[in-house]
Amino acid sequence: MNIAVVGVGLIGGSVGLAARSRLQATVRGLDVAGGERALAAGAVDRMAEDLPDALRDADAAFVCVPVGALAEVVRDVLAAAPAGCVVTDVGSTKRGVVRAIDDERFVGGHPLAGAEAAGVEHAREDLFEQAGWYLTPTATTSGILLQRLHRIITGLGARPVAVDADTHDRVMAAVSHLPHVIANVLVAQATSVLRGPPAEGSGRARGVPVIGPSFRDATRVAGAHPRLWREIYAANADALGEAIDAAVARLQEARAALAGGDVEALGAWQAAAGEDRRALLEAALAGGPLREVRLAVPNRPGVVAELALSLGRAGVNIADLALSPSPDGTTGEVALWVPAARAGEAAALCVPLALGPVRSGEDPE
Amino acid sequence: MNIAVVGVGLIGGSVGLAARSRLQATVRGLDVAGGERALAAGAVDRMAEDLPDALRDADAAFVCVPVGALAEVVRDVLAAAPAGCVVTDVGSTKRGVVRAIDDERFVGGHPLAGAEAAGVEHAREDLFEQAGWYLTPTATTSGILLQRLHRIITGLGARPVAVDADTHDRVMAAVSHLPHVIANVLVAQATSVLRGPPAEGSGRARGVPVIGPSFRDATRVAGAHPRLWREIYAANADALGEAIDAAVARLQEARAALAGGDVEALGAWQAAAGEDRRALLEAALAGGPLREVRLAVPNRPGVVAELALSLGRAGVNIADLALSPSPDGTTGEVALWVPAARAGEAAALCVPLALGPVRSGEDPE
Repeated sequence: MNIAVVGVGLIGGSVGLAARSRLQATVRGLDVAGGERALAAGAVDRMAEDLPDALRDADAAFVCVPVGALAEVVRDVLAAAPAGCVVTDVGSTKRGVVRAIDDERFVGGHPLAGAEAAGVEHAREDLFEQAGWYLTPTATTSGILLQRLHRIITGLGARPVAVDADTHDRVMAAVSHLPHVIANVLVAQATSVLRGPPAEGSGRARGVPVIGPSFRDATRVAGAHPRLWREIYAANADALGEAIDAAVARLQEARAALAGGDVEALGAWQAAAGEDRRALLEAALAGGPLREVRLAVPNRPGVVAELALSLGRAGVNIADLALSPSPDGTTGEVALWVPAARAGEAAALCVPLALGPVRSGEDPE
Repeated sequence: MNIAVVGVGLIGGSVGLAARSRLQATVRGLDVAGGERALAAGAVDRMAEDLPDALRDADAAFVCVPVGALAEVVRDVLAAAPAGCVVTDVGSTKRGVVRAIDDERFVGGHPLAGAEAAGVEHAREDLFEQAGWYLTPTATTSGILLQRLHRIITGLGARPVAVDADTHDRVMAAVSHLPHVIANVLVAQATSVLRGPPAEGSGRARGVPVIGPSFRDATRVAGAHPRLWREIYAANADALGEAIDAAVARLQEARAALAGGDVEALGAWQAAAGEDRRALLEAALAGGPLREVRLAVPNRPGVVAELALSLGRAGVNIADLALSPSPDGTTGEVALWVPAARAGEAAALCVPLALGPVRSGEDPE
């Protein structure tokens, strides 16, 4: 398998490392700089000279450039890519690129992985191990190419989940972009409290030992990668603005509860947060046995995407997905592996798209 | 040395473990429950039967009970403690107990250490290693007893810093209590975004893989120990309320910047947060060579406290502090070890309290 990686930094380099070692893929990289470092890191088999060179005979292409440049680079990559090549990106916001591109070969993507240090020299073969990886297929997405991308991403060690771009950006505003904004706010506030008034001169932080572990954790992402994050903020400004409004409303509720002085109510609020966090983490860690769900679908673009999105919306993780077109090409057989406990629900969600019955494997083990 | 620990949970147990192994102290514990677990953990030499038994011949007493009970228990401990015993507490807010107690033997305290799990079975001998430990001496505090407590706390592995109770509570509101409130807010918001609308039924979190590492870190303290935290929130409600107001104002500024769409300005904001965080962490980690500052002071309560507070306000960490009263008992010689780079500043801060010249060691190494 040939994989092109356009933009070989931390994420692109990790895709290359994992694809070479886990999928035995041949990886060609393309970057404006850093080719020698990418080769030294083992992230690519070779650096390409230009897009046509990078995309020649490629089965898949990963566009790993900053969010602000995504639409343009994805368009160029699609222009250079073969007809059967699936093209994806790894941007942290999805509406922009998904709206800009209308091509059955493109599937937006977003791995939930990263590191404090950028650059291909920090790339890791196991960066995506057990990480969530959002995919944003649309009504125009080719089922065969979506299936291939799904397989590649599980092969890299990640867990793909389909989601529509709007939901993706709203969820990311709540679970990633807002925490980044808040980390910056916490740092600014601590700095202003800890610095002496201007008259005291040095501007040095006072009260040296106040940086306890909870503050360090709460602000770990403060100020991360300004050149990347300014574009993420800008690309998701509307959803992030709404998330900030909601956070402000919640803070004002908490403030009212404090003013009310009801210790029992404060304890109940604290306990509810603990339970909600456990539920979120448990949902994210859910594993266990899988079961197969099998159905026939019309062989047209968007059908597999619609299936994947429908299960993604319900929180049903598709561990694997296989597609086999019928001999005459008009229909396709889809096999999905989903958590056994959700198989009945998954089968029911598949019914509206199925040609005929949806079968759920009795016991795959 | 005899040390009494009243309330032998995570913090009290760790005080006991560290005092036994690092200071070769004899530790007596007192608790309404958990005596066997405290003994099994090695946190105490023995459990006392009552306060007089725990405090008999004690050189120091650590009151490690929830914030809401502090003033009452500290008062009882002082009543049972010998005349030469320093009594401290480990509560996360300080104004309440400091205002309630007027005794030269009492010094409020607050170690910046903790763990996700409570209980003496999670106590650790190294819990305070390199941790900051606030002390809130007042004008009535005995210099000799403050010095002893300072020595004990550095002996436990921590770095004591003097601060007045008002500043302490305001700083804690910014660097600890507000981050806890915000962690709860982030969890509530993620839960509301990720749960399907009620019509979808299960209430199960959707979009399984969204719990990336940044969200886990940002919300690590969400819902921590409701029975402890409800009292911390209530005890610091006014300062925490002001911190929430300030955070809301900063969030609204960030929202306006997002709406403005100025990518350069967003990048500069992000970069400034990164620089501020580095400055905070560097200030907290500052180490390096020490230098001695030596002066004579009048031998009356509050003088050493005033010195320590003055240096604490300036962010000058006192690595060690030694006090030797003159033979006639009217004056005392104070030796402070401070970071060499701050020695001149420290000496200048000592001048207003000194009887005669303040000497700064030229080169202690």
